[in-house]
Amino acid sequence: MTKPIWIKHATQLATLAGEGKGPRSQEAMSELGLIEDGSLWIENGIIQAVGTTNELEKRYAEKLHTADIVEASNHLVTPGLVDPHTHVVYGGSREREFEMRLEGATYMDIMNAGGGIHATARMTREAIEEELLEQTMSRLDSFLAHGVTMVESKSGYGMNLETELKQLRVMKELQQKHAIDLIPTFMGAHAVPPEFKGKEDEFVDYLIDKMLPIVAEENLAEFNDVFCEKGVFTPEQSKRILEAGKEYGLVPKIHADEIEPYGGAELAAKVGAISAEHLLKASDEGIHAMAKAGTIACLLPATALYLREEAAAGRKMIDAGVPVAISTDCNPGSSPTTSMPLVMNLACISMRLTPAEALTAATYNAACAINRQEKVGSIEVGKQADIVLWDVKNYQELQYLFGVNHVKAVWKKGVKVVG
Amino acid sequence: MTKPIWIKHATQLATLAGEGKGPRSQEAMSELGLIEDGSLWIENGIIQAVGTTNELEKRYAEKLHTADIVEASNHLVTPGLVDPHTHVVYGGSREREFEMRLEGATYMDIMNAGGGIHATARMTREAIEEELLEQTMSRLDSFLAHGVTMVESKSGYGMNLETELKQLRVMKELQQKHAIDLIPTFMGAHAVPPEFKGKEDEFVDYLIDKMLPIVAEENLAEFNDVFCEKGVFTPEQSKRILEAGKEYGLVPKIHADEIEPYGGAELAAKVGAISAEHLLKASDEGIHAMAKAGTIACLLPATALYLREEAAAGRKMIDAGVPVAISTDCNPGSSPTTSMPLVMNLACISMRLTPAEALTAATYNAACAINRQEKVGSIEVGKQADIVLWDVKNYQELQYLFGVNHVKAVWKKGVKVVG
Ligand SMILES: [Zn+2]
Ligand SMILES: [Zn+2]
Repeated sequence: MTKPIWIKHATQLATLAGEGKGPRSQEAMSELGLIEDGSLWIENGIIQAVGTTNELEKRYAEKLHTADIVEASNHLVTPGLVDPHTHVVYGGSREREFEMRLEGATYMDIMNAGGGIHATARMTREAIEEELLEQTMSRLDSFLAHGVTMVESKSGYGMNLETELKQLRVMKELQQKHAIDLIPTFMGAHAVPPEFKGKEDEFVDYLIDKMLPIVAEENLAEFNDVFCEKGVFTPEQSKRILEAGKEYGLVPKIHADEIEPYGGAELAAKVGAISAEHLLKASDEGIHAMAKAGTIACLLPATALYLREEAAAGRKMIDAGVPVAISTDCNPGSSPTTSMPLVMNLACISMRLTPAEALTAATYNAACAINRQEKVGSIEVGKQADIVLWDVKNYQELQYLFGVNHVKAVWKKGVKVVG
Repeated sequence: MTKPIWIKHATQLATLAGEGKGPRSQEAMSELGLIEDGSLWIENGIIQAVGTTNELEKRYAEKLHTADIVEASNHLVTPGLVDPHTHVVYGGSREREFEMRLEGATYMDIMNAGGGIHATARMTREAIEEELLEQTMSRLDSFLAHGVTMVESKSGYGMNLETELKQLRVMKELQQKHAIDLIPTFMGAHAVPPEFKGKEDEFVDYLIDKMLPIVAEENLAEFNDVFCEKGVFTPEQSKRILEAGKEYGLVPKIHADEIEPYGGAELAAKVGAISAEHLLKASDEGIHAMAKAGTIACLLPATALYLREEAAAGRKMIDAGVPVAISTDCNPGSSPTTSMPLVMNLACISMRLTPAEALTAATYNAACAINRQEKVGSIEVGKQADIVLWDVKNYQELQYLFGVNHVKAVWKKGVKVVG
């Protein structure tokens, strides 16, 4: 039995409590369920009560002396952030490639020097499980320090069955070994492996016939993701992969319309994907199809910044009725960062989300994008006590004072893990 | 007498040691004076020796047992970062204005609600010295936590003599009260005060006749800065102000060509300014004039990001021979951040500086931009022991793993102030 925790006098408590069980869109993305002089009571890792300090003081009058008290005046309190899209399990590091590019190396120079995604695939294949585990642990530590308490993680650097399984098993082990909840996604269709170049349909057959059954049998993933992009997998190939996954109970996700409009958003709506990712070049038709289907747009403004692309049209998508979530896209090629706070800032700066919408996109809607909204994403009675105490007075400051990690403390399932 | 400090086994020690006493340009910006298995010895706040761990172990064999030992294996060590351009002393906070803008408010809505620079001027006028001091202290704490050990700070939110003097006196007091070195710049010509609207030349007279003499007499500033931009101060007015300041020994700086090409870069070269700031729209002629005169370009990529402008042409300026420094531009309107690490990342991402150039721009060249290169900006014998230990293995990782504050420890004048 651990002691109860009583967080009190929060200058602003953003509960994110709201109606309904599904992702929030339009005005609902601005409703943060704010409580001034807010307070919450945690016991056994679960949120037991939420209200004003006065209310909880009365309600728990006889137990107050048993609790660890957290004085939160001058602070904002929110649910733990959720990152619904990462490639966090990978081998090696590519900082030298980053430098070469800035020194003027061309794409071909990098490839000839063994760089790019195939470098990560090679280093991930070579890494033994313990190395992968250790490298990923330190990235998860950094996520936690940035207020992130749940992280989706994709395979996809294997490009062969053995390494895909290795990545997924590392995730399973990390779920035991690290405080962060790791939600696994199978992404065998991340790129076309060199040995299948020009024989993409054969690779799709291989993935469906050989990889999916084992992933399902070993219960290694909940979601099934595919990189639907010109020169990678066509919408038809993507659809086959996602429909096959559904047979095994894997919920579809799609990397869609990142580089050019390619029908990815439309496909996401059509196959009932829980989310479509990137969407820098999504068509208006695609956006409307997603709004109609309730598909979540998982937007990645740090990636756009890193690649010097214009960010996705987040403002337009919200106005069109699409529920929006945001994510770091943490990966060694196009977004080597673990900072969800920066991603929230960029959602405001680059995608014109309001500070309230950015917070919803990084908590409740992010939880919806990985089907965890009944457990996390808001501060409500019965939910997991994943809580962040911020060194700012309100949610506006959190987005306005940008580029800084304002986390002061983090509780994961009621245990203080940062601060 | 404090104990000596022995930092040893740094996987990479970037000394920034180099030839010459002036700002570095072109290839010299890439020379970081790297030492593998690096080591330094600090006594009385001063760097006493720099070399490999082996070298220093022999040299100090008899004193090793007297030292505080810092084990830096797996870490990068650099000089403290220098921020050569901030407006860090201001009253109030404008997060609500940030939100209003994202909710669709127009410029006029904001102005009618009492927002913009005049809001900061009003709040700075209203704040008593203690309040200004306290607010600025907490910003300086954040700078220090981000590895910044010296900060330039401008007046300019007063728009009247009394408040300008108040800002400058707060800086003087902070120089005593805070570990960070604060270098003061007078910027009476930051905007045209409402009462001088349409009578800009009269305000210039007032500034030259009434403000400058007192600032100089009280020894409150080293530099004299002016916002040279269409609708604010013309190049002619700017020149009068800067030349008048030179009579009092104040070194010119210019906010130049931020919004449109206006001859600011050319003027900076002509009046012998130590640096020109912003330069988003600087002309090719202006850039070449700066290269010829050795004027430092002080570039502010976080401001460009926040305002959704294309960043300054840092790559082109370096290639043209201009010495480049970078800065947060920390201010409540267009860059409310204290993160020099993010600014280094953006120098690479948005301005295409190499990781090495970005580090030079944030240390040695930044020190040059405030005339402190003989004291700080590199790790060399005799210099002030302003040192940062980073949680990355090399300078490339520092820029590549972006959006994260990798600071692990900071020493200011040989005293550990962070970590
Ligand atoms: Zn991805
Ligand atoms: Zn400025």
